[in-house]
Amino acid sequence: MTIRIGAEEMAGFLDEVFPQVKGMFGIDRLDAELLVMRLFAHERHLRPGSTVSGPAMFGLADVAAYVATMARIGREALAVTTNCSIDFMRKPVAGADVLAECRVLKLGRSLSVCDVLLYSEGMPEPVARASLTYSLPPKRG
Amino acid sequence: MTIRIGAEEMAGFLDEVFPQVKGMFGIDRLDAELLVMRLFAHERHLRPGSTVSGPAMFGLADVAAYVATMARIGREALAVTTNCSIDFMRKPVAGADVLAECRVLKLGRSLSVCDVLLYSEGMPEPVARASLTYSLPPKRG
Amino acid sequence: MTIRIGAEEMAGFLDEVFPQVKGMFGIDRLDAELLVMRLFAHERHLRPGSTVSGPAMFGLADVAAYVATMARIGREALAVTTNCSIDFMRKPVAGADVLAECRVLKLGRSLSVCDVLLYSEGMPEPVARASLTYSLPPKRG
Amino acid sequence: MTIRIGAEEMAGFLDEVFPQVKGMFGIDRLDAELLVMRLFAHERHLRPGSTVSGPAMFGLADVAAYVATMARIGREALAVTTNCSIDFMRKPVAGADVLAECRVLKLGRSLSVCDVLLYSEGMPEPVARASLTYSLPPKRG
Repeated sequence: MTIRIGAEEMAGFLDEVFPQVKGMFGIDRLDAELLVMRLFAHERHLRPGSTVSGPAMFGLADVAAYVATMARIGREALAVTTNCSIDFMRKPVAGADVLAECRVLKLGRSLSVCDVLLYSEGMPEPVARASLTYSLPPKRG
Repeated sequence: MTIRIGAEEMAGFLDEVFPQVKGMFGIDRLDAELLVMRLFAHERHLRPGSTVSGPAMFGLADVAAYVATMARIGREALAVTTNCSIDFMRKPVAGADVLAECRVLKLGRSLSVCDVLLYSEGMPEPVARASLTYSLPPKRG
Repeated sequence: MTIRIGAEEMAGFLDEVFPQVKGMFGIDRLDAELLVMRLFAHERHLRPGSTVSGPAMFGLADVAAYVATMARIGREALAVTTNCSIDFMRKPVAGADVLAECRVLKLGRSLSVCDVLLYSEGMPEPVARASLTYSLPPKRG
Repeated sequence: MTIRIGAEEMAGFLDEVFPQVKGMFGIDRLDAELLVMRLFAHERHLRPGSTVSGPAMFGLADVAAYVATMARIGREALAVTTNCSIDFMRKPVAGADVLAECRVLKLGRSLSVCDVLLYSEGMPEPVARASLTYSLPPKRG
């Protein structure tokens, strides 16, 4: 599963197709083995207890699976999430960025399956894990 | 599973514990059989193709399960989501509110399990379904 | 979503494609609204405490989603499960059959999404819930 | 998360608490980092196309999460699965044993969360992945 879009080009592609989340996410690493994405801590993600919200963590896992898939199949803005299962395991550290480590477990003709572990930066144990399935548009180039 | 907090009091409770999402959600119905919550359509939830984003739908399902649980156990702002599995099945209608129909399948001592169907207002078939588990704080009154 | 294969023909079809589970399952109802399948209680499904095992309940949910899908698309023995999320909520009644109520939430070109509630016969509250996605073979007749 | 029950003692414990599955599973490795369990290939797990069935793979993932949890908390036969999300990604190799690599992501007071990758022996890419949550009995020693 060769990488066809590198981190820098991908960042530009994301800004183009998802302008509404511009500035929320960064790409720390993008290669054939692992993608690491970063959710910048912002006040608007806070829940009681000042931690990053569940929807914000879901959003990070979702965009990471999208980026990991796009990096392999090329620009296909219309790939859609069909399923996500997410386990929230620990309270994120208040004020810390959240990092997503994403691996592609399967890239088939019509489905991509990704595994994501989410960490509060600086904390060794994961705060959440997620698996996501993307449905891929037919007859992609 | 008697309802201990009605729709109006619950709306005030939500504004108090989640001020950061004030104005995003409404409660259309809240009784022992069914909760119906509404996500008001806003530009910031849009994805390519102008539909409500996955994270916004996840957030609606999550808050619906929280509200359905709180309505039965009373004010416990610290109940936390431990798992969500969500299937995205159809493209939401652009510009339409999203409605969540939430049922409580189990309310145990330590876990609450809810089922949610999400609809674009005016469309008969669901756009998504979700199941959520909340972990409940021990020794609640 | 018209039913193309009725309960009796479906029972024969199951025996033909899954001879190894012959006699394990029955079809109580099969129409456009609902499928009800039955897992006959057998000693081999028992776990400590004498209840039906998790894998047996998973197997019932899985076959129910398969039957509900086949009933609509016609005989396609090679449709495959791609995802299942299952919540085990209550201890099944020892010695009682388990009934699966299955609804088809989406039947698309390439995916079928089903919702299943599992009950111990005679107990009003569900013992488990599951959602399943089947991948459908392309170009089906 | 120290291991309190080693592979050999665990095998005896499994035979004792789950006599109905005696001979189905083996433990290849059990230490603080990883558990590897083996499902011995048997004709009764076959589906059309002669592959290991979904329920058999679910059962392997379920018992692996149980074993990984028990190894850390000690003998608690009544721990119960509350949730499993499983993705079936590739067709298992006919006749090959299935190996489960199981990691414990969280071991809390009341919940254990495990991640499992399933492989057909000799095939490098996983045939399935699963995440499982076990509910742990209160006041364990």
